Amino acid sequence: MAKFSLGVDFGTLSARALLVDVDTGREVAWEVYEYPSGVIDDRLPSTGEKLPPDWALQDPQDYLDALENTVRAAIKQSGVDPGDVIGIGIDFTACTIMPIDKSGKPLSFDPKWSANPHSWVKLWKHHAAQPQATRINELAVARGENFLQRYGGKVSSEWFFPKALQILDEAPEIYAAADKIIEAGDWIVMQLTGVESRSSCAAGYKAMWEKSVGYPSNEFFEALDPRFECIIDEKMSRCIFPVGAKAGELTAEAADRLGLVAGAAVSVSIIDAHVAVPAATVIKEGSLVAIMGTSTCHMVLGKSSKIIEGMGGCVEDGILPGFFGFEAGQSCVGDHFAWFADNCVPASYRAEAESRAISVQDLLTQKASALKPGQTGLLALDWWNGNRSILEDGDLTGLLVGMTLSTKPEEIYRALIEATAYGTNIILEAFESGGISVDEIVACGGLAERNEMLMQIYADVTNREFKIAESAQTCALGSAMWGAVAAGKSRGGYEDIAQAASKMARVKDKSYKPNPDAHRIYARLFEEYKKLHDYFGRGKNDVMKRLKAISAQNR
Amino acid sequence: MAKFSLGVDFGTLSARALLVDVDTGREVAWEVYEYPSGVIDDRLPSTGEKLPPDWALQDPQDYLDALENTVRAAIKQSGVDPGDVIGIGIDFTACTIMPIDKSGKPLSFDPKWSANPHSWVKLWKHHAAQPQATRINELAVARGENFLQRYGGKVSSEWFFPKALQILDEAPEIYAAADKIIEAGDWIVMQLTGVESRSSCAAGYKAMWEKSVGYPSNEFFEALDPRFECIIDEKMSRCIFPVGAKAGELTAEAADRLGLVAGAAVSVSIIDAHVAVPAATVIKEGSLVAIMGTSTCHMVLGKSSKIIEGMGGCVEDGILPGFFGFEAGQSCVGDHFAWFADNCVPASYRAEAESRAISVQDLLTQKASALKPGQTGLLALDWWNGNRSILEDGDLTGLLVGMTLSTKPEEIYRALIEATAYGTNIILEAFESGGISVDEIVACGGLAERNEMLMQIYADVTNREFKIAESAQTCALGSAMWGAVAAGKSRGGYEDIAQAASKMARVKDKSYKPNPDAHRIYARLFEEYKKLHDYFGRGKNDVMKRLKAISAQNR
Repeated sequence: MAKFSLGVDFGTLSARALLVDVDTGREVAWEVYEYPSGVIDDRLPSTGEKLPPDWALQDPQDYLDALENTVRAAIKQSGVDPGDVIGIGIDFTACTIMPIDKSGKPLSFDPKWSANPHSWVKLWKHHAAQPQATRINELAVARGENFLQRYGGKVSSEWFFPKALQILDEAPEIYAAADKIIEAGDWIVMQLTGVESRSSCAAGYKAMWEKSVGYPSNEFFEALDPRFECIIDEKMSRCIFPVGAKAGELTAEAADRLGLVAGAAVSVSIIDAHVAVPAATVIKEGSLVAIMGTSTCHMVLGKSSKIIEGMGGCVEDGILPGFFGFEAGQSCVGDHFAWFADNCVPASYRAEAESRAISVQDLLTQKASALKPGQTGLLALDWWNGNRSILEDGDLTGLLVGMTLSTKPEEIYRALIEATAYGTNIILEAFESGGISVDEIVACGGLAERNEMLMQIYADVTNREFKIAESAQTCALGSAMWGAVAAGKSRGGYEDIAQAASKMARVKDKSYKPNPDAHRIYARLFEEYKKLHDYFGRGKNDVMKRLKAISAQNR
Repeated sequence: MAKFSLGVDFGTLSARALLVDVDTGREVAWEVYEYPSGVIDDRLPSTGEKLPPDWALQDPQDYLDALENTVRAAIKQSGVDPGDVIGIGIDFTACTIMPIDKSGKPLSFDPKWSANPHSWVKLWKHHAAQPQATRINELAVARGENFLQRYGGKVSSEWFFPKALQILDEAPEIYAAADKIIEAGDWIVMQLTGVESRSSCAAGYKAMWEKSVGYPSNEFFEALDPRFECIIDEKMSRCIFPVGAKAGELTAEAADRLGLVAGAAVSVSIIDAHVAVPAATVIKEGSLVAIMGTSTCHMVLGKSSKIIEGMGGCVEDGILPGFFGFEAGQSCVGDHFAWFADNCVPASYRAEAESRAISVQDLLTQKASALKPGQTGLLALDWWNGNRSILEDGDLTGLLVGMTLSTKPEEIYRALIEATAYGTNIILEAFESGGISVDEIVACGGLAERNEMLMQIYADVTNREFKIAESAQTCALGSAMWGAVAAGKSRGGYEDIAQAASKMARVKDKSYKPNPDAHRIYARLFEEYKKLHDYFGRGKNDVMKRLKAISAQNR
């Protein structure tokens, strides 16, 4: 009798439930639910109050509705007996956090607090805690805190403590009223199991937790603000579950809400990017998974801790248990091309795309495919949204050089794609020069699925083969795999993730192999990229920052 | 009884005749004629032969037809008695040259030669003589030729001797068959007067002629090619007429063709840009005229020769008799904004412009006008068409820095405009640091006429007042003024150009004065521009050239 596992993938704008046959990895049914409130970055729904710049909130009710709607729909579509669903895995964007009360209810659900924007979920892309991040970084440097090294030397404004400190700074009453401050992924697991089981993945990558030493010290937090001294014990938990662990079992109440059967195993939550790794077949050191979408996340497994420039994090048990998970990222990839298609493509191209019933980006891709490497004469720095790895500098901005009066939109489009490939190559070089060899690359995500020209450029620029994960829903598949591991072999699942991957995950037959002639040209262009990268990114000319500062002063 | 003068302005795509009342400067009638063959840069009309890249030819028949059609139409419209037209002035693009036979007929009119593209007019923007220009520059440097200094150290591929040497190299039979090689402006004067009266303006700016020393030596030309030794005496003339001189009188045949009366004075031809100077009221040293259109030309008068970095030329009697005329230029101004409007503006903007019945550039200008100085966070190097002054480097290309995912088209548009203003400021600094003080600026041309935002940005960036010439047809007015000077006081004209300017030329009441707050911001941005200008333009990082070379190798 076949057994099934559910993976529920909570993204930025929607959630997706995927029901998977545990034995074969067959994707039986799935359903997507768009969050009605989406990203709340303009006005607070409860009051209509205008939010300040860089704020990005969400409504936890959207998560609950998404969970119920997608799971019920997937089960219904599949015709599977809910009793055969043995495990559930959850992945979520991070760091996406919320204050909750003693009963686990978000403070934003409470009429007493809902008018205060700090009672709502702070989404990963909430960037308004930069002053707090700066304070944390300055203090950590001043005190010589070791933890900074694991994060490439800098804590991001997106992470847990800057966001929590912003609540304390700007809404101490919310901070005081919060029984806990919790990652949304851990909160969803709590809704399913009735217990708090915080994951090593989000704790390690977003909250400076480390398996062997735990969190930063109370002294460190006290030095930030005396009221912050005991944040771990007062608002969080020191009990951290490694990825792959069973967080608990589905409660009767949750089973009832979702149309499932109580007792199904629930895995600890994982960050959406990180969950893709085993779903892309990667379960050993030296293999890199690149999730290529609006942004790109690069993850590699290693057997020991290393200090690598510009890494987003090096976390033991962060991706797979028993491994150190190294993470790097590019903050502007698909977003970059979408910006270009929306803002920089002339009416004549849009008309041509419409007449051929293809998207503007598909038209640009067709035209750009006809160009040879090097032909455009253009070179870009792909920093339209700052640089995550390896410079870790959100104040860097985009650059394009080489334009003439003959330059065409598809040439710029190709140059932007090439720039992101150079950015990936910088990251690969950083991994390798830091002692993490990269022997295999598997890509997944929308760009890897759909854009052959882009993937070939990546292969040509990096001079490496790019394999492609077979599933188009890698994150949800990964969650389902973890669900099967949480269920365990005795209940029809797997003993460990390697077993699950061997049965449930695959790569496509087609991979992208480097063309030596193209690589020779790209090698020259990459040298030019590196020169500009270092000139503008390493302080030789901080014009980007000065322009940003001048702009901020003159709005 | 009122007297009249005719100015005929030969541009790149059309010619314009303007009939002006000599006493008042009133513009009585005008007519424009588009050249049917336009710029011949694709196929040779006589054979359909495909032209190589960088070629740009014209058909002299277009000039003759333009002359006849526009003059006849203007006279007819005006109702003026042709006998009251006392003078004619001609201005022409340069260096625009053609081989002619003993009778003055262009070789391209001769069926024996018309299939050879070298028999046709080489338009100023014919850039295929770069190898010859390079040879000339290298030889001039090797021999320590003084003339280079007057042209900022470099002879352009657009000029006379590179073009003539290209004929010799590639079509020695045409070179041999040519009785003369002549500027199109001088050729038109020859059609009117029956005599060859070459102008100091084109000779000085385009053929390395200098009043006190003449042309480069025969030894220099011989060293280029033995057959080139006597080019001056064989194909040109050492008899050079200063601007303002009377070239001759209208012949009966020409008068008949144009519907005028024989005997009217004809002035020597002047380059189209340079003729605008007195028409913009500028007749004294320290005043600069900026002709702002597809490209911008800056001209200043001085009382002595100076060596100034990156000048297009310093020519005695080159603009006004008795003055040294200094010329600088920006090769990509209006062209730059047109490229952007054509290639980089999304369909939604075009739709908005159409619904409001304004042009895309007008829409961009309106949106960009709402931005404050510095607000865009963007900075560009305005080198989409290379850099004429002060770097004199056609291999430089464009650069844009500061883009984010929020960057809007109007922000880029404004940044491109600002970049051209910084480019102008670099030129003003070069003039002043070379000892040419600039005490007054008068702008003319399409951009000065129409784009208030742009002019205010120029005033704010340079911290200088920009006056605007009153006439919208400054070049044709200037030619008419020179026609009145050629006629002389005794025939109802003027003794000199100063007299003519005092009666016939004016600036508008409205000028653009710098806003101190805006200037303070732009002064900071200009420092950033200069830093990038020097980094990319002065050899610290020749990435632009390397990208161009890689592109050329991979087409």
